Amino acid sequence: MERLSALCTPALVVDLDKVKRNAQRMIERCQKMGVQLRPHMKTHKTLECADIMTAGSRRCIVVSTLAEAFFYAEHGFDDILYAYCLPFDKMERCAALSEKLDLFQVLLDHPDALDQLKKRPLKNGRLWHVWLKLDCGNGRAGVLHSEPGALQLAQAIAGTEGVELTGVYAHCGNTYTCKGLEQIQAVAQETTSFVLDFMEKLRAVGITCKSSIGSTPSCSHPVKDMAKLDEVHPGNYVFYDVQQSIIGSCCLDDVAVRVLTRVIGHCPHRNQLLIDCGWSGISLDGAGKLSTGYAVIEGHPNLKLLSMTQEHGRVEPISGLLDYSKYPLGSLLTLIPYHSCATAMMHPVYHIHSDGHLLGKWTPTRGW
Amino acid sequence: MERLSALCTPALVVDLDKVKRNAQRMIERCQKMGVQLRPHMKTHKTLECADIMTAGSRRCIVVSTLAEAFFYAEHGFDDILYAYCLPFDKMERCAALSEKLDLFQVLLDHPDALDQLKKRPLKNGRLWHVWLKLDCGNGRAGVLHSEPGALQLAQAIAGTEGVELTGVYAHCGNTYTCKGLEQIQAVAQETTSFVLDFMEKLRAVGITCKSSIGSTPSCSHPVKDMAKLDEVHPGNYVFYDVQQSIIGSCCLDDVAVRVLTRVIGHCPHRNQLLIDCGWSGISLDGAGKLSTGYAVIEGHPNLKLLSMTQEHGRVEPISGLLDYSKYPLGSLLTLIPYHSCATAMMHPVYHIHSDGHLLGKWTPTRGW
Repeated sequence: MERLSALCTPALVVDLDKVKRNAQRMIERCQKMGVQLRPHMKTHKTLECADIMTAGSRRCIVVSTLAEAFFYAEHGFDDILYAYCLPFDKMERCAALSEKLDLFQVLLDHPDALDQLKKRPLKNGRLWHVWLKLDCGNGRAGVLHSEPGALQLAQAIAGTEGVELTGVYAHCGNTYTCKGLEQIQAVAQETTSFVLDFMEKLRAVGITCKSSIGSTPSCSHPVKDMAKLDEVHPGNYVFYDVQQSIIGSCCLDDVAVRVLTRVIGHCPHRNQLLIDCGWSGISLDGAGKLSTGYAVIEGHPNLKLLSMTQEHGRVEPISGLLDYSKYPLGSLLTLIPYHSCATAMMHPVYHIHSDGHLLGKWTPTRGW
Repeated sequence: MERLSALCTPALVVDLDKVKRNAQRMIERCQKMGVQLRPHMKTHKTLECADIMTAGSRRCIVVSTLAEAFFYAEHGFDDILYAYCLPFDKMERCAALSEKLDLFQVLLDHPDALDQLKKRPLKNGRLWHVWLKLDCGNGRAGVLHSEPGALQLAQAIAGTEGVELTGVYAHCGNTYTCKGLEQIQAVAQETTSFVLDFMEKLRAVGITCKSSIGSTPSCSHPVKDMAKLDEVHPGNYVFYDVQQSIIGSCCLDDVAVRVLTRVIGHCPHRNQLLIDCGWSGISLDGAGKLSTGYAVIEGHPNLKLLSMTQEHGRVEPISGLLDYSKYPLGSLLTLIPYHSCATAMMHPVYHIHSDGHLLGKWTPTRGW
């Protein structure tokens, strides 16, 4: 079996054992809580990793693009939640999936979107399965949990012919500004409480449906009350990354992805190395704000990925002078990505290994 | 013919008329100077755009990855310069192209790379065609033009059996920090002078070969002395972008690419809109430092693309309150990218139009 060093660089490499371990831990965590895990596919967008995350069931997933939804649907996946505020330009494609799959689910946060569903009733008496997106402090999509309009919209969905209110969905992305267990769990608790309170309000007007929250930090360190939810929907946990280790979701050893790169230049006049990984190989996510720049260079804590152009990275020591004899031209360095979703997105293929032995390739889907 | 508004978003759209105009202007500029244009493919990585840039000749191009080199070679292109410091892991693939094409050319800046070529002589008496990369102030790859080692390396290349010193290559990427014609031309002049001085030194030791400099700013506003060079190798000019308009390479009207996006959320409680273009649709290049954030929103000078997650963009007014009636859910906005190379990289397909009428799709190559 070939070793990682046989790869041309830059190359995204995935440690299959860590992927399986991360996936298994989340499955067990959810089983213990008695909550359904609906893993998000947006980080990797591959069939193989989806199989691992769903333990082979190919059921009960979340996707971020309709391209992902079609990709998984075409490969036998079902019970797919397209967790993106119903895009009016993609109504027909959403209807096609709703009419094809056993259970395709959409999400919305505005009465105008409900009007779109009314205008396009599904064939053969099928129902639109709709999640209501709540904003519980994340500050992105969703109707504010505290607004009277939230309950009114839930009632409107539940009361519309041809439409079913399947659940209430919140993404606690505000865990991404947390540092450490305490802060993560404070946000997880707050989001959970807001959602559970909302479910109470729904019950008071005679509506029952599912509830789901998610984010990798909160689902890596769930609070007890999350057991009262029906589902959780984390995604990044299968790879993790430097960002998650800083937040406190994982330790650096849990991170399952790396970008392999090689030294392609010596620049002693500016105390720098050049590597063959630019932003096209690792992305600009993180804005270079780590003490080690745009990534962590594994095994070389004194090196910083200072800046990048499309195909070049400039590496310099955090202190002192570079010893170039340690980094001959052609030698390998290993980057741990700041944000694995962003890094994976740059690669048309992922190289899978176990303990450094290459096992094969995974090909993600792309586009929208 | 379908209009742009028929596209699902986010979508990269390319104005074919502007592409042709930008390409034609560069061709004419080079003809007038009497210098060979060797256009760079790294911005678009498509066959169709390469045809336009080479005026159909399919000859004399530069690429940034070996994946591009193989892609173009497989589609009948030749005279390809792989302008990337000879990567030791890709020696066999470089040799394969050198043995297959009439004229495949590599680039190096270090004696170790020359040693690699010596270890892998080409079959059938073919020569390695080698450009020496000079650093004339850009501060990335290349041997410093002022170093004695530069001349020694050129002599070593020229004196090696099985290897030909084809030319001297400099990328004046330091034009990217310029603002305005005067600064661009100062860098263009300096780079040209350094290269021409180096060519003199070569002639003094009996070596003749080609010379080439390039960058979109310098080649958009060439100085007279550039006529003494053999080649220029700009690339971004075929699309241009907001960055180039700020540098002064072009005006905003010359920019041939846009990302179409739609309004998917109203957030009056924070005076924001959500759009369906996140960093996966436009990239994080530019770091949001424009007064309008991560892009220019065409026709809406008071809007700013403030922040992005993978599939969402947050838009807010630069001043005042948003009038949501102007931006109904589902309505289109048009983003002019900060850096078209980075934006194009995020898209698996480009939608081509003339005057807003869709003509077809271009599919770029990806990977390394």
